[in-house]
Amino acid sequence: MDKIARIDMGGVGGPTVTVTEVGEYAGLGGRAMTSIIVATEVHPLAHPLGAENKLVISPGMLSGTAGAMTGRLSVGCKSPLTGTIKESNAGGQAAQVLARLGYAAVILEGKPTTDDLYKLYINKDGIKLTVDNSLRLLDNYPAVAKLRGEYGDKVAYMTIGSAGERKLLSASIACTDPELRPTRHCGRGGVGAVMGAKGIKAIIMDDAGMKMRPPKEPERYRDANRKFVEGLRKHPVTGEGLPAYGTNILTNILNEAGGYPTKNFRTGVYAGGSKLSGEAQAELEIKRGGSATHGCHRGCVIQCSGIYNDANGNYVTKQPEYETVWSHGGHCGIDDLDTVATLDYMDDNIGVDTIEMGVTIGVAMDAGVIEFGDKEGAIRLVNEVGLGTPLGRILGSGAAITGKVFGVERVPVVKDQALPAYDPRPIQGIGVTYATTTQGADHTAGYAIATNILKVGGDVDPLKTEGQVELSRNLQIATAAIDSTGMCLFIAFAIMDQPETFQALLDMLGSFYGITMTGDDVVALGKKVLSAERDFNKRAGFTAAHDRLPRFFYNEPVAPHNQVFQITDEELDTVFNW
Amino acid sequence: MDKIARIDMGGVGGPTVTVTEVGEYAGLGGRAMTSIIVATEVHPLAHPLGAENKLVISPGMLSGTAGAMTGRLSVGCKSPLTGTIKESNAGGQAAQVLARLGYAAVILEGKPTTDDLYKLYINKDGIKLTVDNSLRLLDNYPAVAKLRGEYGDKVAYMTIGSAGERKLLSASIACTDPELRPTRHCGRGGVGAVMGAKGIKAIIMDDAGMKMRPPKEPERYRDANRKFVEGLRKHPVTGEGLPAYGTNILTNILNEAGGYPTKNFRTGVYAGGSKLSGEAQAELEIKRGGSATHGCHRGCVIQCSGIYNDANGNYVTKQPEYETVWSHGGHCGIDDLDTVATLDYMDDNIGVDTIEMGVTIGVAMDAGVIEFGDKEGAIRLVNEVGLGTPLGRILGSGAAITGKVFGVERVPVVKDQALPAYDPRPIQGIGVTYATTTQGADHTAGYAIATNILKVGGDVDPLKTEGQVELSRNLQIATAAIDSTGMCLFIAFAIMDQPETFQALLDMLGSFYGITMTGDDVVALGKKVLSAERDFNKRAGFTAAHDRLPRFFYNEPVAPHNQVFQITDEELDTVFNW
Repeated sequence: MDKIARIDMGGVGGPTVTVTEVGEYAGLGGRAMTSIIVATEVHPLAHPLGAENKLVISPGMLSGTAGAMTGRLSVGCKSPLTGTIKESNAGGQAAQVLARLGYAAVILEGKPTTDDLYKLYINKDGIKLTVDNSLRLLDNYPAVAKLRGEYGDKVAYMTIGSAGERKLLSASIACTDPELRPTRHCGRGGVGAVMGAKGIKAIIMDDAGMKMRPPKEPERYRDANRKFVEGLRKHPVTGEGLPAYGTNILTNILNEAGGYPTKNFRTGVYAGGSKLSGEAQAELEIKRGGSATHGCHRGCVIQCSGIYNDANGNYVTKQPEYETVWSHGGHCGIDDLDTVATLDYMDDNIGVDTIEMGVTIGVAMDAGVIEFGDKEGAIRLVNEVGLGTPLGRILGSGAAITGKVFGVERVPVVKDQALPAYDPRPIQGIGVTYATTTQGADHTAGYAIATNILKVGGDVDPLKTEGQVELSRNLQIATAAIDSTGMCLFIAFAIMDQPETFQALLDMLGSFYGITMTGDDVVALGKKVLSAERDFNKRAGFTAAHDRLPRFFYNEPVAPHNQVFQITDEELDTVFNW
Repeated sequence: MDKIARIDMGGVGGPTVTVTEVGEYAGLGGRAMTSIIVATEVHPLAHPLGAENKLVISPGMLSGTAGAMTGRLSVGCKSPLTGTIKESNAGGQAAQVLARLGYAAVILEGKPTTDDLYKLYINKDGIKLTVDNSLRLLDNYPAVAKLRGEYGDKVAYMTIGSAGERKLLSASIACTDPELRPTRHCGRGGVGAVMGAKGIKAIIMDDAGMKMRPPKEPERYRDANRKFVEGLRKHPVTGEGLPAYGTNILTNILNEAGGYPTKNFRTGVYAGGSKLSGEAQAELEIKRGGSATHGCHRGCVIQCSGIYNDANGNYVTKQPEYETVWSHGGHCGIDDLDTVATLDYMDDNIGVDTIEMGVTIGVAMDAGVIEFGDKEGAIRLVNEVGLGTPLGRILGSGAAITGKVFGVERVPVVKDQALPAYDPRPIQGIGVTYATTTQGADHTAGYAIATNILKVGGDVDPLKTEGQVELSRNLQIATAAIDSTGMCLFIAFAIMDQPETFQALLDMLGSFYGITMTGDDVVALGKKVLSAERDFNKRAGFTAAHDRLPRFFYNEPVAPHNQVFQITDEELDTVFNW
């Protein structure tokens, strides 16, 4: 990972490819790489779809090695959805392949001068950019199927669906999983629209002839990795819950905690919750010949995913995540897993963020476009997004714009990004993260659910204000660092509870780079990333006034705890005081 | 004007009306009243369509008197379009009638608990709020026609069309002119959506039994008014240009200056400009039995309006303003006055801002929804807005949202409000106003065209950077004061060039209130208003980063002067240093 490739789509006489040494960005990876490049090189007032924005694709610091869990790929840019800096990461095979090819970052720059659609092929011999208008408006599954005919099955694909080509603000970038399904998405913030604006439909990465990235201290690395894997396997979340039921194990847990946002955040318990649960989902998947345990990339030892088949045993989609089951399920008053799975497939195929899409459908229900609980209606609406009709374009623009276009007041967004599947009133800690993260409302940015609800890394009462700011602060710092390593965020459960597993992670980083890595170094890395992001956002015009939840969370108590969001503005403004 | 009426639409057991003394807001009027009430009482992060927002309606300080030009009505709120504080003012009869009824402000508050549509009747005996669902989705012309059947012709009407009921972000509030046509609009910033969110379809003001507001010093007032009128009559702009050709006299002037934004700001000269000119328009109006000279309210001595008839001599609309002729004309590559007049009527009827609507159609043309120059297409698109189709809702949400929904980079907005009819690259002074005004892009907020192009109040070279910040600053201060008096802004031409006419205005204000009023007092008033507005916006999250033009004005020189916007960020940030 000593190279950076810059693809200038606005080059004189057509796009140009320039490969240089990593230079000033040496040692960075993942989110640290994308955020620091964007903060350094992108004008903070750039139009997200214009020549001045850049799409930075970066494997993590440990991606492409023999280490477990190192398959996350970060994509960064100025977000067309939020206007903030954005880092969106996904699993799948891309990070490993790109890292082995030696690229610390691939940067898409400039603005195309024609309407041509390009594909970018990267292998050991270099980078080739080719016009391929035959891919136009193909959604992700057919696009990958077509590309596989040309490039085969031993490569990784990154593609955008029709949503990305149409530059819809909820457009994602799909990464293929080990079985070449375009199911792992850099979902949030409209990164797919930026790829679409660059005129790039697909990136094909082929690491034939390349090897695993070698650690500086191979033995120490192997030993650390072994201990790290042991830690993951013995933790109840990463060793039992996630492998058996996936993230959707959370449906019952959140419903029991009264923190499951139901029908556009009107109540915290959903009567239909048990029908959507991870337990019900896993049972159905196994019964139909799918699978409740599956890894999104090689080297995953958690295997939180699965395969969801229909009643006839035919593949529908990968196991929908908890947030997807929630956004298309309880948030919309829909308690049917088959409907959710169909919508998950449609989102993946069209190439839109499942959280943004589901929340948007709920807002449209609030507007009266369809009724809450209307399963066929929800499918029809997402289909409109794929067709690119005016209604589909509205919905594909996300919850904030859908709320504005339909005159809806009740729109659960922060910085114009939809809130995920946890109500911030009964779970105050996640509200701190939603409000203050640099990314717009995002649970992964500082997953306070771990400590508020799952009691991982301690126990902070979700209903009280005490300790929430500190909790969110520490999680946001840790997450920014983990997102830079290429590690899946789910390792956090084990490293928060097991000092020896955290030490194993430090040893993996240290032995790979031939340095000594301490907890302080990890904290410093996280702060460095957050500071760069905060600084970009500040220059883009974001202030403390944007680090707030929508007013209804302050004014409207939610059952069953009948509580509003209670963290004061003054407290929120101390999150980044360190 | 010693009373304030508060209409709480969310009152327990239904809406409540409370009339109190003006109290702490005594002495304020127009924009000073609306902005200071909004800044004082509205939570800066309130949802614009929610219970926490307020719609403040206020006649000017001299409205309802025998003084000339005192018929402007201010409407203020937190804008659903811009998110900033908003003051939008209009002519018509409403200000005079409301002032004579003694109301310094009527404030619509709270959020309705039902879907009922209300009308508000105000006369000498008080205020009556009545459910009238028979008005639902009537556009402004039919709504006023229906109301005239009930309330007659000796009242003033304020109404919203279907756009306001649908809470579209470009929705206006219509005020009737002396002939009861709903042609004078509080257009900018979506104030009609806020009225719609309050569930109020119409306000009927009946001043039967009331008298002109009496000055404290009647003789001095009469004398000052006479001198004031003399000044207006002898100035070439207010005494000749505007009466003869209306504001559309500017088409040829701006085209000749190379500052006429053509086809979504691609060039500064429009070949079809002469066909849209005020001279051509006046000739056509007179030929068809309309009129090129008409006042929007009684007491107007400028008479900048007119009546536009079709080829058969039937009324189409009032004389379209320059900015309307531009937005629906040259901006869209349409050089046909009849098309523009039809669109002007449709905008007035549906109840949308003509600037926002026209600019939005141009952005939709850029997106390829229809072609530039497509007259029938433009009419079809505005018709969709009236029908409330998904496409119509997108367009009715304004240029910024239309740009986002269709993935267009080239969107001429500041703070999400469409730029009016003057390119800021060849006319740098107006660019300073667009960027920095508290209102989102707005020409009236500091009409630098006066001095940059018309050479009124001095001569500041429009192509140079020197003097533009000071010019815009002084104009913004003066405008904020004038907008508080109830005076039509067009008096500015005369008072900028004629010290005796400015003195006459001071004497009108002084004699009416029985005080001595100096130029310094006017400046202090303007600064007070702007400070309240800036403070609200700051609390709402607006920063220097929002006081900028879209990037393409900095990156893309425009013919014929081949110049970009050149005022530096540092200079822009000094506009409010006083």
